[in-house]
Amino acid sequence: MADFDLAIIGTGSGNSVLTPDFDGKRVVIIEEGTFGGTCLNVGCIPTKMFVYAAEVATTITESARYGIDSQLTGVRWPDIRDRIFDRIDPISAGGKTYRERSDNVTLLTGHARFIGPKRLQVSTGEGDVIVTAEQIVIATGAHPMIPDVIAESGVPFHTSDTIMRLPDLPRRLVIVGGGYIGAEFAHVFSALGSEITLISRSSALLRHLDTEISEAFTKIAGQQWDVRLSVQIEDVTATGGQISLRLSDGGVVDGDVLLVATGRVPNTSGLDLAAAGIDVLDDARLRVDDYGRTSVPGVYGLGDVSSEHQLKHVANHESRIVAHNLAHPQDLRPFDHRFVPAAVFTHPQLATVGLTEEEVVELGLDYVSATQHYSGTAYGWAMEDTLGLCKLIADPNTGLLLGAHLMGYQASNLIQPLIQAMSFGQRVTDVARGQYWIHPALMEVVENALLKLGLS
Amino acid sequence: MADFDLAIIGTGSGNSVLTPDFDGKRVVIIEEGTFGGTCLNVGCIPTKMFVYAAEVATTITESARYGIDSQLTGVRWPDIRDRIFDRIDPISAGGKTYRERSDNVTLLTGHARFIGPKRLQVSTGEGDVIVTAEQIVIATGAHPMIPDVIAESGVPFHTSDTIMRLPDLPRRLVIVGGGYIGAEFAHVFSALGSEITLISRSSALLRHLDTEISEAFTKIAGQQWDVRLSVQIEDVTATGGQISLRLSDGGVVDGDVLLVATGRVPNTSGLDLAAAGIDVLDDARLRVDDYGRTSVPGVYGLGDVSSEHQLKHVANHESRIVAHNLAHPQDLRPFDHRFVPAAVFTHPQLATVGLTEEEVVELGLDYVSATQHYSGTAYGWAMEDTLGLCKLIADPNTGLLLGAHLMGYQASNLIQPLIQAMSFGQRVTDVARGQYWIHPALMEVVENALLKLGLS
Repeated sequence: MADFDLAIIGTGSGNSVLTPDFDGKRVVIIEEGTFGGTCLNVGCIPTKMFVYAAEVATTITESARYGIDSQLTGVRWPDIRDRIFDRIDPISAGGKTYRERSDNVTLLTGHARFIGPKRLQVSTGEGDVIVTAEQIVIATGAHPMIPDVIAESGVPFHTSDTIMRLPDLPRRLVIVGGGYIGAEFAHVFSALGSEITLISRSSALLRHLDTEISEAFTKIAGQQWDVRLSVQIEDVTATGGQISLRLSDGGVVDGDVLLVATGRVPNTSGLDLAAAGIDVLDDARLRVDDYGRTSVPGVYGLGDVSSEHQLKHVANHESRIVAHNLAHPQDLRPFDHRFVPAAVFTHPQLATVGLTEEEVVELGLDYVSATQHYSGTAYGWAMEDTLGLCKLIADPNTGLLLGAHLMGYQASNLIQPLIQAMSFGQRVTDVARGQYWIHPALMEVVENALLKLGLS
Repeated sequence: MADFDLAIIGTGSGNSVLTPDFDGKRVVIIEEGTFGGTCLNVGCIPTKMFVYAAEVATTITESARYGIDSQLTGVRWPDIRDRIFDRIDPISAGGKTYRERSDNVTLLTGHARFIGPKRLQVSTGEGDVIVTAEQIVIATGAHPMIPDVIAESGVPFHTSDTIMRLPDLPRRLVIVGGGYIGAEFAHVFSALGSEITLISRSSALLRHLDTEISEAFTKIAGQQWDVRLSVQIEDVTATGGQISLRLSDGGVVDGDVLLVATGRVPNTSGLDLAAAGIDVLDDARLRVDDYGRTSVPGVYGLGDVSSEHQLKHVANHESRIVAHNLAHPQDLRPFDHRFVPAAVFTHPQLATVGLTEEEVVELGLDYVSATQHYSGTAYGWAMEDTLGLCKLIADPNTGLLLGAHLMGYQASNLIQPLIQAMSFGQRVTDVARGQYWIHPALMEVVENALLKLGLS
């Protein structure tokens, strides 16, 4: 008999697997980093806490256009940082203590690697421990990818894991990477007072979004930050506390702090998955099927280590599905990855669900598209908004939405009725006219975008 | 033959009746006030423009708790006012010009009264005009009710019609009325720097809301403003620019400007409806049936003059229904007043749809209720929120929502997925778990409230 009924590697969404179904089971949880995983400790949650402070700062610096004169007299970076981590760190510690005190759960701190299909070796502070389990969940997440030119330079750099704990607000921050992590930190540090240089290989920021949105955001970014597009980094040096990057277009960028945000790599390489016969995909993701099963029976994967979506709400969903499937192997439920939304908490905010216009074109689908600007609605007038928009794409034959793409204030909230419509197969016309939309709430942007599609 | 196919009295939602169905018809529109009606000129739209400026001011004064130090150095009331009305007044004027230039529409400026079932006398600047029409729409709206004690005092006062055009920001504003108009103006003027005294006959503000919300809001209001509850006004006097109100509890309230916000009366009394045999309800509302028809065939009513809901989104809906019914008398459509939401744009914001807990109890319905505080969600942490909540009431037998009541940041937008769920008969569990909710958007408050209902 194995030592445990269930072994879970990783305490982010992996920790949520333990529903009441496992109350009577012998469980081991293995964590080599900070208890609670990426989202809680170095991801969504602290970043959004910084983002809200940034929103407050931005509101102050833009107040004069509303007839309100104000002065931003100081940004207390250490206070912001400490307020955030003084709140988060105890949550992590509390979660850990809760597991440590649990009767049926053993918590091991250390790195786990497979030494057989259902056999793990965990390197703890007190030496190696061999763990066998009937079922295993791999929920090891992902880690920041560091380009060789930076890794090999010896120049000190930060990632999203460390940048939020800086001792002081940097005067000049150089960010490498034009994805959502780079964009969010550019927003935060810029709003709080840092000068930002943002470097990207791509010709536009946030290239995974609908091109219209990506291009509009890139233009706005260029007005706020020193944005260098379509460049490679040739060389990185540090002299007397100043970091210098030489770019492929001949440009040179200087700064005080360097943030690398060039993507995240699934944490599979250290697991010795081959020793267990567990398959890995070409992009280093753990291969799982629609039910979260790896190629070895009884071994499951979820979250950033295996998912095509590196998003906490997806990891949470996968965790619920895997929890069910572990306990009910005769009644397996599939993941639902049909309509996965995502948001970028920049200024303006971005939110997306479904297909982009480029994807619709590439698939050869029949479609209609409509864009409603915030400035064409009453609340948009109130905000004197000039940037916000809601772009919708629909299938004129079915009357169903294919994609929704928002840029602007509150985009991450305004998109929800559209996610709901798509998830439940509600037709555009019904959603637009079969319910009330409060006048003059900003949500009227969505109502008007739906109407603008001109479907009947 | 009548002079016109259609006569419309009132240019608020009445003006929207003219869909393409009426392009070939002879139409007369009669307006005695400002073209565009309450919402555009003195209601939802300008108030929300002031509200946004107030939000900006509030963000500045509360910034220190986020580690951002700032000073509110000035509120340019004339600039705020002029920015708003320089935008709105041309929309009203443009709407009027558009109708004046229309080939098939005659615009009459003046007061209309019935002198027969399909016969109106309009008092214009150039004398009286008799108008006959095959169909008539009464969309005359409502006007502020002024208590006798104030009307008869001779003391100058403002209503929502005039307060937004004040020459200067008042130092001390006395507001009579504890409904949504009084509460919104209290928020606006308070945030911009006025001292507020709010007087209400009721024991709580916003009594039409769920009691839990009403009581919570009343408590918050009492911390910001001088709130006098459960009092009548005994006497009003003005001396040397100072207005003084003696209250039934012996208290005396002084101020520089007096705002009366004690409700709105449907504009029926001046229409001589009896002359046309058109019925009026005891509360002075025009009586209409589910199809918008008055007691006289061919005469319709819509919006604040007849509706049980004095809300622009309801008036817009009724306008669409009446427009259809006028053009398709053999295919009448009914109003849909099942799930009418409403919001109050205070700080915190309020939003509501469906039944309150008191109504559910009174109806003897089986129900469950759950409240999710903003402070229990990641974005609520980011905002350091202490006030926000989402209270849901559901029928455990059907799994359907009965009511949703929000207080807090963005409540008017966060409520939309709940309106959608109720309007389309979506079950709580499906809505909660059958779609993704972006983490960590504030909308998670709604997701968590749905889950907290504990339905399966």
